Amino acid sequence: MNGAESVVRSLHAAGTEVCFANPGTSEMQFVDALDRTRLMRCVLGLFEGVVTGAADGYARMAGKPAATLLHLAPGFANGAANLHNARKGRVPVLNLVGEHSVRHLQYDAPLSADLEATVAPFSNWVKTGTSAATLARDAMEGWAAASSHPGGVATLILPADLGWNEGGVIAPPVAPTPAAAVADEAVSRAAEALGPGAVLLVGGTVLEDPAALALAAGIAEKTGAAVMAPGANRRIEMGAGRPAIARVPYPIDMALEALSRFDRAVLVEAVEPVAFFAYPDRPSVLLPEGCRVVTLAERTQDGKAALAALADLVGATPARAADAPRPTAPQVGPLNDAALSQAIAAALPEGAIVVDERLTRGRDVGTFAAGAPPLSWLAITGGSIGIGIPLATGAAIACPDRPVIDLQADGSAMYTLQGLWTQAREGLNVTTVILANRSYEILKGELLRVGANPGPTALDMLDLRRPDLDFCALARGMGVPAQRVEDAAELHRAIAASVHEPGPMLIEAMLV
Amino acid sequence: MNGAESVVRSLHAAGTEVCFANPGTSEMQFVDALDRTRLMRCVLGLFEGVVTGAADGYARMAGKPAATLLHLAPGFANGAANLHNARKGRVPVLNLVGEHSVRHLQYDAPLSADLEATVAPFSNWVKTGTSAATLARDAMEGWAAASSHPGGVATLILPADLGWNEGGVIAPPVAPTPAAAVADEAVSRAAEALGPGAVLLVGGTVLEDPAALALAAGIAEKTGAAVMAPGANRRIEMGAGRPAIARVPYPIDMALEALSRFDRAVLVEAVEPVAFFAYPDRPSVLLPEGCRVVTLAERTQDGKAALAALADLVGATPARAADAPRPTAPQVGPLNDAALSQAIAAALPEGAIVVDERLTRGRDVGTFAAGAPPLSWLAITGGSIGIGIPLATGAAIACPDRPVIDLQADGSAMYTLQGLWTQAREGLNVTTVILANRSYEILKGELLRVGANPGPTALDMLDLRRPDLDFCALARGMGVPAQRVEDAAELHRAIAASVHEPGPMLIEAMLV
Repeated sequence: MNGAESVVRSLHAAGTEVCFANPGTSEMQFVDALDRTRLMRCVLGLFEGVVTGAADGYARMAGKPAATLLHLAPGFANGAANLHNARKGRVPVLNLVGEHSVRHLQYDAPLSADLEATVAPFSNWVKTGTSAATLARDAMEGWAAASSHPGGVATLILPADLGWNEGGVIAPPVAPTPAAAVADEAVSRAAEALGPGAVLLVGGTVLEDPAALALAAGIAEKTGAAVMAPGANRRIEMGAGRPAIARVPYPIDMALEALSRFDRAVLVEAVEPVAFFAYPDRPSVLLPEGCRVVTLAERTQDGKAALAALADLVGATPARAADAPRPTAPQVGPLNDAALSQAIAAALPEGAIVVDERLTRGRDVGTFAAGAPPLSWLAITGGSIGIGIPLATGAAIACPDRPVIDLQADGSAMYTLQGLWTQAREGLNVTTVILANRSYEILKGELLRVGANPGPTALDMLDLRRPDLDFCALARGMGVPAQRVEDAAELHRAIAASVHEPGPMLIEAMLV
Repeated sequence: MNGAESVVRSLHAAGTEVCFANPGTSEMQFVDALDRTRLMRCVLGLFEGVVTGAADGYARMAGKPAATLLHLAPGFANGAANLHNARKGRVPVLNLVGEHSVRHLQYDAPLSADLEATVAPFSNWVKTGTSAATLARDAMEGWAAASSHPGGVATLILPADLGWNEGGVIAPPVAPTPAAAVADEAVSRAAEALGPGAVLLVGGTVLEDPAALALAAGIAEKTGAAVMAPGANRRIEMGAGRPAIARVPYPIDMALEALSRFDRAVLVEAVEPVAFFAYPDRPSVLLPEGCRVVTLAERTQDGKAALAALADLVGATPARAADAPRPTAPQVGPLNDAALSQAIAAALPEGAIVVDERLTRGRDVGTFAAGAPPLSWLAITGGSIGIGIPLATGAAIACPDRPVIDLQADGSAMYTLQGLWTQAREGLNVTTVILANRSYEILKGELLRVGANPGPTALDMLDLRRPDLDFCALARGMGVPAQRVEDAAELHRAIAASVHEPGPMLIEAMLV
């Protein structure tokens, strides 16, 4: 058995079922091994950013890593932006990256570049294979690193000759590191800090578990504290019957305002909230100056168990979810922000997976969706745009029975639009709703925030008109049926129809 | 004046006329400075890979760097693959990369990552600004680094606050390092080595100068040596009246065969040719074992002056170009490889700029084009696919009066297809000819070369069908008119018509 086959067989034995791939020459032996063994589902992306974003979406829903198959420094770099999101969101991803064979590395071949240096900023764990015999063991270490609580991006560099050399040895799984327990002292410190004027900030796995969320809400109720979630999270379980947890807003002034009333913060699998960006006259830290920060659970710790202990200590029980009204279909009318939010929320079916790369538009979708049937909400975790379409693709691979709705800003959609082709090829039930405002709207706000008074050159650089993008044509060019809508009631009907039909669909929502 | 404005004004004074941009928040102050000063042409790309590839194409034709405006580690990574090509091709590019403000770097903000580590593998020169007062001086250093012979990728990291802080000081240009002179001894060693059984391998600026090419060909004639060029070069001047120089082929066996008859090689602004990839049973070095290699001029040296000195020493004069026949329009018939090559070559008008991201198809276009009117030929220099559309975009910005024809493999086109939108927005006379074979054909060859016997999974991962891509729909979605052709005579007519009309056009050539 060659090194490549030993890796594929070992990863599969450990539970790896899917390989998202954009293969190149340096890892042809892995393509061959995947082909001969037929153990994994191989999903082709036409661009590496699709591959890595899909691996992220898959892992968020499957709760375990997929493998990616990438090649050399430029190929990895093409996928790096979405790995950045996975790394920030602590999503388990295992990258297999083909490198030149060891003897070829000494030459300055056209595709040579420093691969280890390239992968490091986008990985939590990096290793370069050294022999065919140890390659599967390296892969198992990487798999464990990716799978350790709360998850991470592991990158294994595979020199080509180690893949094609004979002498591969299947390696047993390496146990991932489980969530570390929280000390009793941390629980009592948290209990002491909670009360009116305090915020319980819960993130990570807590948000993925409705019971833990209800307990967090119960603790807040009992102590008089508020409960919030970080601005961006890999997954939140929400909808009817689940507590609606406010998130720290993205715009700096709204974030400062939302947190201004707290003088204590208790963190559970979350870090102290900081601004996305610095501005000349705004702080970087979002909690008020002097706010006391108590960490109940680090991101590597078991936040759910810590909340259970905290609930015991303060005598809290799970909160009953507020009865949010089931969203209703909007009236006929233009697609302003409220109508857009309502149209989307009212169309969400039971078990929907919502991918959120809205950025500026439809801010109230989440509020409306609090009364929708139970759903999973996946956000952009590292601020790197171009993840929505890939994320939706991967989530649909993980959950073939659940409809996926991607709320997709138009500018961001153009980064990794190629993912639509993969959706068509794999027949995935993904409804992509393009929120077409035809500008980098979010950047106009940022331009004002640095004190600029934008003229035509600046506005032109933030504008997606001239020519207008036709997302329906783009979708059809990749085999995805598409429809343009300009009316709120029609948007609702289009989404509601699409989620009940197999295969992908793109809806270009023309916003006013 | 703030730091950003001092950079823009200094760069413009040094001759920087164009800024290719995909702006994000961290460099909003640069957008503002570009807006207020109106000194540079700002060209928006909808993805960073478009921006960097366009800067490459611009510089290859303008002979000087454009600026790029990029943001943070994930944004830079999105543009890294095409910077890899520029770095390998030694093309002058100056990247301005926005970073978080200095005080914000201490926090793990969502978009924080190690930016210096990210840019290093794709840059010949890297610096991070430290104050508003010195930012323009840093930019001038970067401009000089990019412009020094033979060119390079310079990356200046700009913390946001240095851009918005007052105290910017306009800096005078820093002189680029010119090509270093070659020692007399190197010339005599080269003269001694040349003769039958020797190859004169000329690259870099030699290929950009028809007179230098003619001299190289004359030296070869006089001494009985062969003359060749590396496999991929940033620019070759070719066509009628210019010597046709054979290039080292891409496929390993063809490359080994082409070089097998040489026992001496003389290098002029070229490095010893190595294989793109290593294979289990093939050498990495392409020259035969024992072949003596003499360097007349390193890439940093003045190859043209060295050739002039060498010609004096051996008594050579410029060669007369062979009278290659002017290519004629093909007959009606299917688009096989010969008909494709002929159709393209026959349609090339005077002054055409040909961008070559063909990969496997149309191998004889270059041979046919030897008799076409004089033209410039731009190839993919670092093996990283997805450069054709951006490269064509940048070349057209640099040379508004010359038609650009991009010979574009279909799989590669999908990496940076967004560049079509920029072509439409800027009204560029670019004809994109999609060579639609609907597969990663080049990888099928590579799979066989590692000894695989591909089954359905492997073939599926190298296949672009299911669903078929409709490049005409994709082009129209970005405002570019498009036409599908299946006949050789029709392809010739379509290209010939498009190059004489303003604005972009995409022709999807359905290959058999």
